[in-house]
Order: sequence, then structure tokens, then C-alpha cells
Amino acid sequence: MESLKERIRRDGKNLGNGILKVDGFVNHQVDPILMDACGMEFARLFENVGATKILTAEISGIAPALMTAKYMNLPVVYARKRKPVTMPDQVFLTLAPSHTKGRMVELIVSPEFLANGERVLIIDDFLASGATILGLVRLAEIAGAEIVGIGALIEKGFEGGRGALEALGVPVESLACIASLEGDSIVFCE
Amino acid sequence: MESLKERIRRDGKNLGNGILKVDGFVNHQVDPILMDACGMEFARLFENVGATKILTAEISGIAPALMTAKYMNLPVVYARKRKPVTMPDQVFLTLAPSHTKGRMVELIVSPEFLANGERVLIIDDFLASGATILGLVRLAEIAGAEIVGIGALIEKGFEGGRGALEALGVPVESLACIASLEGDSIVFCE
Repeated sequence: MESLKERIRRDGKNLGNGILKVDGFVNHQVDPILMDACGMEFARLFENVGATKILTAEISGIAPALMTAKYMNLPVVYARKRKPVTMPDQVFLTLAPSHTKGRMVELIVSPEFLANGERVLIIDDFLASGATILGLVRLAEIAGAEIVGIGALIEKGFEGGRGALEALGVPVESLACIASLEGDSIVFCE
Repeated sequence: MESLKERIRRDGKNLGNGILKVDGFVNHQVDPILMDACGMEFARLFENVGATKILTAEISGIAPALMTAKYMNLPVVYARKRKPVTMPDQVFLTLAPSHTKGRMVELIVSPEFLANGERVLIIDDFLASGATILGLVRLAEIAGAEIVGIGALIEKGFEGGRGALEALGVPVESLACIASLEGDSIVFCE
């Protein structure tokens, strides 16, 4: 998606060690107009997968998933990393390694909002190693739900996450794919 | 706002101890159409305050703040509760008590995205004691920014947060006000 790539070129920063700083428009300060356009694009890409629910992970998946949900007129569930007091005692829980936190984090969904037979579209901000998204996949599987598609705003093509997701046999779409973050450059996929 | 009150009547649950469960449409599963309508209503209520930025706190403030930001065509910043690796070493940080967590949490904003002279509209999901919102107010003040309005989806009128905010002299708006959560009932303000 050209407008997202253009924004990454303009405001993204390669911090080294494979870290792309996009906190001026994605995950600290958010550009709602850009995020709305990304949601519209995901809705177009996944219009025929028959999704009944959108699933993401707090925190930075919420904005793109919410905008996608609006265009698809579907509820969106964000997996919590801590169990709030409002959640029942029995939950769906899995562990996923967090690249940016350098440790395992919990991903928790209430059984009230992820049901057997549900058709789940996963939307997140980044597809890097795929670890977080695979955590969401496991949550859906525990619930007896089916994954029907996976979308990420930004794919780090050099981290191999797409390969890890291919076994699922569902469409995997990213709106901007980064081929490499060598030196201080940001090189998009061909 | 009648559609939000109606949804609280239908799907909200009084869990006791002043806790209102709205995680079926606000803060775990989110109804994007309702949230979009709430954003439109906040944009209408605050159209004349001259805001240049919207400020909220992760996690559950993100959805209403993002939708408001979209209708006002303003960037939205969500204060982080942990400093991510993409944030500079020097940050604006304050502590706020978390009612649901039972401890103090950090609220952190990068100086890159909250500037001297900025006119800040705060949007959050709940106005209860006002502690989180007052934390956001302090962050804006540290930055040299001015608060121009405060909006919350749901006000717990019985927790007195509005009184704590009145000294700021800015409009404080909630879209649904709960007068009491005695027993298992949900009583709206007059």
C-alpha cells in the first residue's frame, strides 16, 4: 500500500538490530487517517474469507484491527497480556516470545468472546518472526475457532514469519514489506 | 449518548465493588460501529476547543480516542505503561494509581509527540476517580501543553472524578454517566 510505504520512508527510522521505529504514526502516536485507510485496504483484501471476528493483540494491534473491523462490520477482540478483574477465572491463555520485550508474554482471551466455530481474521501491526501471530493462532485453535486470514501493516520479510505461517494455508497479507534493515537504510521488498 | 447507554443496559454487568464489566463492547471485545459513533459524538462535543492533539492511555482508551481523532483529523498519542525500545531515553513520565490493578502504573509519553504549546484533548474509556486522567494532565503539563477538554465514554458519577477535574476549567464530557452500582443494578445519572 503506497501511502503506508511512503509514510515509512518519510517518518520511519531504522534503529539497528532489525528494529524499525514507526511510533510517530503506528504505535505511540497514531495517524487515524492513515490507519483508517489501512483498515479499508485490509477489508478489501479479506472481503471474501468469510470472517466472523477479528483478533489482535494489545497494544499496537488495536488501531489497525479496529479500523479493519469497522469496514468489515465485525467485532474485534484484542488478546490481553494481563488478566483484568473483569475477566472470568477460566480463560484461553498462551505464551508468546516478545522480541521488543526480550521475554515471554501471556496472551489471554476470554472464552466469552472467542467461540467454537468462529472464523477468525488476525490483524496486527507487525509480522516479524510470526511469534505473536502464532500465539493468536493457538488461542483461536484452543477455542475451536478457525483462522481464515492474517494481515499485518508491516512485514519484516527478513525475519521469516511468513514461512512460519504458511502451514496454516490461509491468505497472509501485509501492506508494506521490508526486505532489509541493513545499516541505516529501509529497503522494501520487490 | 443513548446508543451507548442502551448497550450498557443490555451487555454491561455490575460485578460489585463498583466494577462495571463492559468487556463485550469496550475493552476486550470492541464494537467498532459503536466506537465509531462515540468518536463522532466526541468530535461534535469538542469541535470548538481548538485541539491540536488527542491524548489517551493504553490500553482501553485507544479505541475511543482513535475514532475521535479520525473525526477531528488529529493525531492521537497513547501514553505507554512500559517504555518500549523505540522510545528515546528522555521521556515524560508520571505515576497514576490503577483501580483495576490495585497498584501504581507508569504513564509515559515521548517528548517527540507532546510539544510545548500543544492543545490537548484527553479521551479515555472511563472517568472514575479521575486518577488516570489526572496523570495524563500532568504529562501534558510537563510537556508545556495545554489541556482543552476531557472526554470519557463512561463516567462513574459516584467516584467523584469530575470534581477532581473541575479545577482545570475545561469542558468535561461523558457519553454515559452511571449514578450508582448498588446491588446488581446499573443506575444512570439523571
